[in-house]
Amino acid sequence: MDAFQNHYPENVSHCYGCGSHNTHGHQIKTVWEGDETVTRFQPKPFHTSVPGFAYGGLIASLIDCHSTGTAAAAMYRQAGRDLDSLPPFRFVTGSLHVDFLKPTPLVELEIRGTVKEIKGRKVVVETTVFAGGVATARGEVVAVQMPESFGQP
Amino acid sequence: MDAFQNHYPENVSHCYGCGSHNTHGHQIKTVWEGDETVTRFQPKPFHTSVPGFAYGGLIASLIDCHSTGTAAAAMYRQAGRDLDSLPPFRFVTGSLHVDFLKPTPLVELEIRGTVKEIKGRKVVVETTVFAGGVATARGEVVAVQMPESFGQP
Repeated sequence: MDAFQNHYPENVSHCYGCGSHNTHGHQIKTVWEGDETVTRFQPKPFHTSVPGFAYGGLIASLIDCHSTGTAAAAMYRQAGRDLDSLPPFRFVTGSLHVDFLKPTPLVELEIRGTVKEIKGRKVVVETTVFAGGVATARGEVVAVQMPESFGQP
Repeated sequence: MDAFQNHYPENVSHCYGCGSHNTHGHQIKTVWEGDETVTRFQPKPFHTSVPGFAYGGLIASLIDCHSTGTAAAAMYRQAGRDLDSLPPFRFVTGSLHVDFLKPTPLVELEIRGTVKEIKGRKVVVETTVFAGGVATARGEVVAVQMPESFGQP
């Protein structure tokens, strides 16, 4: 699977949510399916809120990293550029909003995103989490192109 | 330290963010300091976005669990009741909003919450994350008293 995250530059491949180099983390993988982006993720048994259901922080994390990945992929697509082409598009989260619609069981989750708006360095992504085909959480992320200074002390 | 989470009923003590029975999780501990609630948390070295800085999902998770804990404590306080008294106040997250103000370094974080509103079964909590005294993220959580049916399939 040729996921967006496989093309992330080295310095953004250490994220707990989506970095392929973070051996402790979720290592989510996101792909295009038409005009939607899709991540499939199997929570661990201990990712619980109450037993059998996912805790909110996991849902928020999946929405966050799925959406910043979607933002980057959307910019490459808009520019007609390959995911490996330089300079890289890298995004951070400006804001994250999640509405929890119902409890999310610990089954394989399908996270689907659509790009609502691209405006300058900012991309707005709407992302929904599905469990067994049922929408359990809906999020919106304002992703912002990473300043060169990001991560400098 | 007599943290709110030490008084959580058994069925909400398994949360990855705040459950004292979740050995894989963050096991955050929250206390009153006057009219504010405070959690102090040391991220692990692998909780990274870019190396040296916390990933957004961790920040969201801390804000979420800190705020639902604050909501419960506020209800006990308003009712003039002890944290151990029955029936328990238990909260889930209706919505979570996080504004990321600047990168959050991997130092001990101070998460401070205030109750904005209590209305029926709903508590609105504003929570700020500080790193070295600097506010790096600000969140708002609408916490809702857990329905008895929560977690039933």
